[in-house]
Amino acid sequence: MTTITEAGRKTTIVPPSSGDFSARQQKTIRLYPVTNYTFGTKEAQPEEDPSVSARLQRLQDQYEQYGIRRTCEGVLVCHEHGHPHILMLQIANAFFKLPGDYLQPGEEEIEGFKVRLDERLAPVAGQQFAPDQHTEEWDISDCIAQWWRPNFETFTYPFIPPHVTRPKECKKMYLINLPKHKVLSVPKNMKLLAVPLFELHENSARYGSQLSAIPQYLSRYNFEFV
Amino acid sequence: MTTITEAGRKTTIVPPSSGDFSARQQKTIRLYPVTNYTFGTKEAQPEEDPSVSARLQRLQDQYEQYGIRRTCEGVLVCHEHGHPHILMLQIANAFFKLPGDYLQPGEEEIEGFKVRLDERLAPVAGQQFAPDQHTEEWDISDCIAQWWRPNFETFTYPFIPPHVTRPKECKKMYLINLPKHKVLSVPKNMKLLAVPLFELHENSARYGSQLSAIPQYLSRYNFEFV
Ligand SMILES: [Zn+2]
Ligand SMILES: [Zn+2]
Ligand SMILES: [Zn+2]
Ligand SMILES: [Zn+2]
Repeated sequence: MTTITEAGRKTTIVPPSSGDFSARQQKTIRLYPVTNYTFGTKEAQPEEDPSVSARLQRLQDQYEQYGIRRTCEGVLVCHEHGHPHILMLQIANAFFKLPGDYLQPGEEEIEGFKVRLDERLAPVAGQQFAPDQHTEEWDISDCIAQWWRPNFETFTYPFIPPHVTRPKECKKMYLINLPKHKVLSVPKNMKLLAVPLFELHENSARYGSQLSAIPQYLSRYNFEFV
Repeated sequence: MTTITEAGRKTTIVPPSSGDFSARQQKTIRLYPVTNYTFGTKEAQPEEDPSVSARLQRLQDQYEQYGIRRTCEGVLVCHEHGHPHILMLQIANAFFKLPGDYLQPGEEEIEGFKVRLDERLAPVAGQQFAPDQHTEEWDISDCIAQWWRPNFETFTYPFIPPHVTRPKECKKMYLINLPKHKVLSVPKNMKLLAVPLFELHENSARYGSQLSAIPQYLSRYNFEFV
């Protein structure tokens, strides 16, 4: 990605500073290397619906009964070589998604989201843990993006389109502060991959509009790589 | 943009609510109609450099003397028909840019940014104002995005690419809270356009990567249209 050659980069001449540049900035986020995290496996979690049309039909049935669907997904960030990477699930060697799911009607948002994250990624009882157990709760940070589904269709937008008064689903993406170490157990039909920001950027063909924009959602943060 | 027909939308049956959905959310932003703002004109402000290569050469000259260039741009949001619109400058019926510019070395960030916004958009002395003058200071809100230029080239990224330790420019985009009314004077060689989010979305061909991602930067906010 970089346009500077190795040789060009190795200068020890430190350029002068033109002044402070940290006003109105989000706090710095500490990232740990992906090797700090331990990945296990657990039982497969098949898709709830057999097809896209079945999924949209269920959305419609539930909307008529309970109103707008609320979905929460987590952006889990770590680093490799000092570049941020996002932990993403890949299903059947094909499409990618973030850990998370829709909430049950009436379920409290953050508590329900933590339950969804545990269902997807927490080790199951009886599995081996490191001495400190690494079972801290999920640390849910800022909402970094929202996507709206105006109708019972696949299209979603990062805004409510004009004249839409009753969107059918709102998906919120949250930044998750990962602790120094954590054990994550991945359903057998999925892979958990650490995808670098530069791979996501302008790559909606592979990752879709929502995931390929993660670099933009995160660009206002500065990172500290430890 | 919407996939719902006029007729389909006009139902008075209010769907049930599946629960609160406002946790970890940014505060709601109040938007006023574009017709609340008064647009005047002022003297032309020609581009500082005659060509892209001249611009990059000046960046390099200044980098060697002062270090990284700090640039600030403002995202001014209003609405039409209850949909957010961004105030953008169009130069010579061709490319688009946000109001703002680079800071002078040593210049304080927010103060310097306000000076750049005034240079671009403030009415000049002696122009007619409405009774309350509408001369309030710019209300600079959150940093919503950063773009990095790793080298003296046109490519920029919403992250620092791997192995880049000395980026040449950082551009910060700020949300500007527009007051209820404001007089803006536009240089004669530019137009100020209110561009809807749905027009920017997935339209990097026309607006470039930085501006077409504005809907993503703003998606975490909810808006109130007054
Ligand atoms: Zn590397
Ligand atoms: Zn540990
Ligand atoms: Zn309209
Ligand atoms: Zn007024």
